[in-house]
Amino acid sequence: MKENKYDDPQFFEQYSKMSRSVQGLDGAGEWHELKKLLPDFSGKSVLDLGCGFGWHCRYAVEQGAAYVTGVDLSERMLKKAEEMTRSPSIQYIHSSIEDFPYPENSFDIVISSLALHYVENYTEVCRKIFNSLREGGCFVLSVEHPIFTAQGKQDWHYGTDGNPLHWPVDHYFTEGIRQAGFLGNDVVKYHRTLTTYLNTLTETGFSLCRVVEPQPDSSMLDIPGMKDELRRPMMLIIQARKTPHLF
Amino acid sequence: MKENKYDDPQFFEQYSKMSRSVQGLDGAGEWHELKKLLPDFSGKSVLDLGCGFGWHCRYAVEQGAAYVTGVDLSERMLKKAEEMTRSPSIQYIHSSIEDFPYPENSFDIVISSLALHYVENYTEVCRKIFNSLREGGCFVLSVEHPIFTAQGKQDWHYGTDGNPLHWPVDHYFTEGIRQAGFLGNDVVKYHRTLTTYLNTLTETGFSLCRVVEPQPDSSMLDIPGMKDELRRPMMLIIQARKTPHLF
Repeated sequence: MKENKYDDPQFFEQYSKMSRSVQGLDGAGEWHELKKLLPDFSGKSVLDLGCGFGWHCRYAVEQGAAYVTGVDLSERMLKKAEEMTRSPSIQYIHSSIEDFPYPENSFDIVISSLALHYVENYTEVCRKIFNSLREGGCFVLSVEHPIFTAQGKQDWHYGTDGNPLHWPVDHYFTEGIRQAGFLGNDVVKYHRTLTTYLNTLTETGFSLCRVVEPQPDSSMLDIPGMKDELRRPMMLIIQARKTPHLF
Repeated sequence: MKENKYDDPQFFEQYSKMSRSVQGLDGAGEWHELKKLLPDFSGKSVLDLGCGFGWHCRYAVEQGAAYVTGVDLSERMLKKAEEMTRSPSIQYIHSSIEDFPYPENSFDIVISSLALHYVENYTEVCRKIFNSLREGGCFVLSVEHPIFTAQGKQDWHYGTDGNPLHWPVDHYFTEGIRQAGFLGNDVVKYHRTLTTYLNTLTETGFSLCRVVEPQPDSSMLDIPGMKDELRRPMMLIIQARKTPHLF
């Protein structure tokens, strides 16, 4: 059973107050890095897996994308996405990432922002994405960093003075379910190693282009607590391509 | 000044007692994974940076390499390497990794096992390796994992019962010198993020082929303390290739 926390009214309300929900892309700490890894959208057919409020879908169209399909499991998210969207080139589809039908050879660009750590079968989804991309197509994904998800509770280890002492890592090579605290709720996430994130892509047939652990933009470092984001990686962004293999 | 701890008699003696020094490759916990990432050596010209006792040099020749150059800063290490080596196809050179002259377009394979975290200027060394490789050539490196080097002291955070509670991560995005404890000594190492390790390679012109965080082989898990190696990654192995870029 796929968890759908984003349709829980209380969780949805909390999520809706996050700066990434209110301000959109500019309110997301990793956007300045993710943006650099997105390819040229002009005339392209784009699939956004876990599109949420549709910020990346609308951005793709603003950048010239011909068609964008946004997929999300949460009806509440999609309802708000539709309210915010004017473009006829964007179609929102209510589906889990796993169950979306993935038409073959249909997309030039697949993006997935902070959604794949909710997916149990990453290997199968990678295979479906690969088949759904055209040759030369680009897949850009961001997930919570394996160092962030490994131990499970996703919180600092605190000193006796109540300040974060360091980030605790444990159970790194034990992949699978974690009950993580997020917005005051327990949310099910799947921990995977960096090795799994990267080599599942190469084993599927993708070439790895870029791997980035985003740091907050220097302009954000005055925001309270933001300097702690330099103490451990929180996210991982990967850019991969479907190219003919040379060896 | 490049630190040369391996010529310190006491440190050298300690290092010489480690299982990777006594038993060679089979005594190294990561060998079963590193071996899989090594390309076919038949007839190849090989450079081993930080060759130590020469285990990988001799392995390359056993696997059919035509010529192998082993480079190390430690005269003591090279002396022992020469004592253990019969093959006329292996040449040992006393040099730091940074100062080796790197003849252009000369090697098919460059390997470097657990040495590049001692090197301050990784970018420059990557550029030299790239120029020294022939087109299609392969670079396989292992380093201590960024999660292992980030905080600095390279030790567990212990509970009141004296058992490891978790692995502490801190200062992740602050790259540079760390004074780490190793074999009862303070050793200077350089911490770099995963992003830096990988993207320096791609920016230099390499294609990323494989990225592996080795786990101990299941046959080793009965060795005392070995199960803790599943709790956090200790090493990172990268396989990259000098190929013409498609985009």
